[in-house]
Amino acid sequence: MKKRIVLLPGDGIGKEVINSAKDVLNAIAEEFNHSFTFETHEIGGAAIDQYGNPLPETTIDACKQADAVLLGAVGGPKWDNNPSHLRPERGLLGIRKALDLYANLRPIKGFKNLLHASPLKEEVVAGSDLLIVRELTGGIYFGTPSERRDGGNVVVDTLAYTRSEIERIVDKGFQAAQGRRGHLTSVDKANVLESSKMWREIVEEKKAQYPDVVVEHVLVDAAAMKLITNPSKFDVIVTENMFGDILSDEASVLTGSLGMLASASLSEDGVGLYEPVHGSAPDIAGKGVANPTAMILSAALMLRYSFQLDNEAKLIEDAVQSVLDAGFHTADLKISEGRLVGTAEMTRLIVDYI
Amino acid sequence: MKKRIVLLPGDGIGKEVINSAKDVLNAIAEEFNHSFTFETHEIGGAAIDQYGNPLPETTIDACKQADAVLLGAVGGPKWDNNPSHLRPERGLLGIRKALDLYANLRPIKGFKNLLHASPLKEEVVAGSDLLIVRELTGGIYFGTPSERRDGGNVVVDTLAYTRSEIERIVDKGFQAAQGRRGHLTSVDKANVLESSKMWREIVEEKKAQYPDVVVEHVLVDAAAMKLITNPSKFDVIVTENMFGDILSDEASVLTGSLGMLASASLSEDGVGLYEPVHGSAPDIAGKGVANPTAMILSAALMLRYSFQLDNEAKLIEDAVQSVLDAGFHTADLKISEGRLVGTAEMTRLIVDYI
Ligand SMILES: CC(C)[C@H](C(=O)O)[C@@H](O)C(=O)O
Ligand SMILES: CC(C)[C@H](C(=O)O)[C@@H](O)C(=O)O
Repeated sequence: MKKRIVLLPGDGIGKEVINSAKDVLNAIAEEFNHSFTFETHEIGGAAIDQYGNPLPETTIDACKQADAVLLGAVGGPKWDNNPSHLRPERGLLGIRKALDLYANLRPIKGFKNLLHASPLKEEVVAGSDLLIVRELTGGIYFGTPSERRDGGNVVVDTLAYTRSEIERIVDKGFQAAQGRRGHLTSVDKANVLESSKMWREIVEEKKAQYPDVVVEHVLVDAAAMKLITNPSKFDVIVTENMFGDILSDEASVLTGSLGMLASASLSEDGVGLYEPVHGSAPDIAGKGVANPTAMILSAALMLRYSFQLDNEAKLIEDAVQSVLDAGFHTADLKISEGRLVGTAEMTRLIVDYI
Repeated sequence: MKKRIVLLPGDGIGKEVINSAKDVLNAIAEEFNHSFTFETHEIGGAAIDQYGNPLPETTIDACKQADAVLLGAVGGPKWDNNPSHLRPERGLLGIRKALDLYANLRPIKGFKNLLHASPLKEEVVAGSDLLIVRELTGGIYFGTPSERRDGGNVVVDTLAYTRSEIERIVDKGFQAAQGRRGHLTSVDKANVLESSKMWREIVEEKKAQYPDVVVEHVLVDAAAMKLITNPSKFDVIVTENMFGDILSDEASVLTGSLGMLASASLSEDGVGLYEPVHGSAPDIAGKGVANPTAMILSAALMLRYSFQLDNEAKLIEDAVQSVLDAGFHTADLKISEGRLVGTAEMTRLIVDYI
C-alpha cells in the first residue's frame, strides 16, 4: 500500500513526538511492505513565527492532498497574548474546519499497568473502556456572531448547528456503538438549550435505524458526575463540540494515562487527522523526556481508520503494551519500579518490537 | 430576630427534605429566641400540575417579599416530555432571573467520615475544600435568540453577557477568595470564545483591586481534568453559568457526599435562595429515605449569608457533623457500619442535638 502522510508537528513536544510516530510508521512500512511518504508542514505557533499565520494555505493544501494527517500539538506561552487571529489554536480550529473533520473519536481505556496512577479508586475505574464521539466543526466554537457589541458592553457567542451536522455525528455515534458493546449515551442539556432539544429529537429519530443499539440520554452536568462515579458504565458517548471538549478532557484523566491517549478526527470521506489528546506541554518541551506513546497510538488509529490496516495498527498497540509490560516508562507515567526512559529510547523500544 | 421565609418544596424528595429544614429552623428559633415564619409556595412540576405554570406569579411575589427562600428540588419524569415553557426547570431558571440571583455559591468540602465513599483515592481528595462561584442568571441558559430557523434546519442558542454581569460575579469571586485562602481560579475558554476573552480581561482588570488574592486562569477543559487529579489545589473557582453548571456537578461527587452539599444563590441586595445540590430523586421520592442533610445545611447557609446568624449556622453544622460522628447515616451515604436511618429520624437527631 502506498500512502502520503502529512506531518504537522506544531509546537512544544509536538515537534518531538511526531518523529516517534514517523519512525514507527517506517518500521511498519518495512515489516508489511507498504510505502509511506511523509511531508512536513507548519501549524500553530510555529506557523505564526514562520508565516505570520497559524494555518498557512500551503498547509491546508498539503493536508487536502494527503491520505492522512498526523498532528503533534499546538500552543505555548509565547503566543498566549496574541490577538485571536494570531493564536496557535486558530490553526487547529481552522484545519478541522478546512478538512471538515466533524467527528472526533477518543477511545479511553485503562492500561492495566497504569491504573494505579489513576486518581480514582481502582475498583471504580477498573474495566472502563469508553469512546467519546465529539462533534468537532460546529457549535459555539464556530458559530457567528461571536463579537463585542455596544462599545464593548455586551459580548455574544453563538452555538449553532444545522440538522445535517447533528445527524451525521449522531450516526457516527450509533455506528461506533454497533462496532462496540451496543450502548450509546447521548449527552445534551435538553432541559435548557434549544440546540440540545433538537439534538435529542434527532437521536430519537435515528434510534429506529439502529435497533441493535441501546440509547440513553444524559444531561451534561449529570454526565460530568457519572464519568467519575461510574466510568465503566459507559460504552460510546456522543455529544456536541463544547460538551465533548470538556467531557473528553475530564475522561482523559480517569485512567491515569493521559500520556497514552490518542484521538482521530474524521471527515465524511476525505482525509482524517490523528493527534494525541495531550497538549504541547511547553514545560517539558525540548528536553527529550516527552512520552511519545499517545502520538504513536494516534498513528495506529490512522492505520486502522484511514487505511483499514488493522493488523498493522494492532501490532503497534501490542508493541506499546509489551514495552510497558517490560517495565519501561516515561516520566509522566508515575511508575516507581521498572526503567525510566526518554522519548527516543521509548520510541526505539517500540520500533524494535515491531 | 424576626424573619419571613418562603419554602418552595418543588418536586420529588424536595417535598420531604423541606420539612426537615423547617423543623431544624424551628429548633434554632426556639434555642436563640428568633421568630421565623414560613409560607409555602409551589414551583416546578407541582406548580405545573396545580396552576399550569412552573412559576406562578404568586410564588414570585411571595419570594420577593420574603427575607429568604428555601427550595427543595424540581423535576421528574412526569414532566420530561412537556413543551419547554411547561417544564419544571423553567420554574428554577425563572425564579433565579426574577430574583436576580446572579451568584451561585457551592462549597464543597469532604466530611471526614464520608471520604471513603469518594470515587477518588483518599490521598487525592484529602484536604479538598473548595468553593465554586457560578454566574447564574446570564450566559447561554438565558441568551436570545434561542430558536429553530429555516424550517427547523438550523438551531441557535446564544451565550450573551453584559460587562456589568461579568464584573459583579468576578467581584463576588474575589471577595469569596479574600474570606478564604486568598486563591481564585477563573475558568474560561479564552482561547476560543469571545465571551471568555472579555471575562478574562475583566478578571485581569479587577486584580488590582484585590491585591491580597492570587489569581490564576484555567481553561474549562483543563479545569475539568484538574478537579479530578488535584481537587485540593483549588480554593475559589469563579466561572460563567454553563461552565459552572458542569464543573460544580463534577466537583460535587469528588468527596463522596453529594447528599450533604448545600448551595446559596444570592442577589445584589435582595433575597437569597438556598437549595441542596442534589436533585428531586424521583426514584426514592415518597419513601422517607431521602437524606435531608443537604437541605438542612442549605438552611444553615441561609442563616449565615442572609441573616448573618453565624452562631446559629455553626450550631446546625455541628449538629450534622456530630450525628454523622455518632454513626447515623441515610442510605445514600454508603456507610456499612453505624445505624441506617430515614429522613424523619435523621432530622430528629439533628433537631435533638440543637
Ligand atoms: C485548543 C482548543 C481549541 C481545542 C478545543 O477546545 O477544541 C482543544 O482543547 C481540544 O480539545 O482539541
Ligand atoms: C435544572 C437546571 C436548569 C439547573 C441548571 O443547569 O442550572 C440545574 O442543573 C442546576 O445546576 O441548578
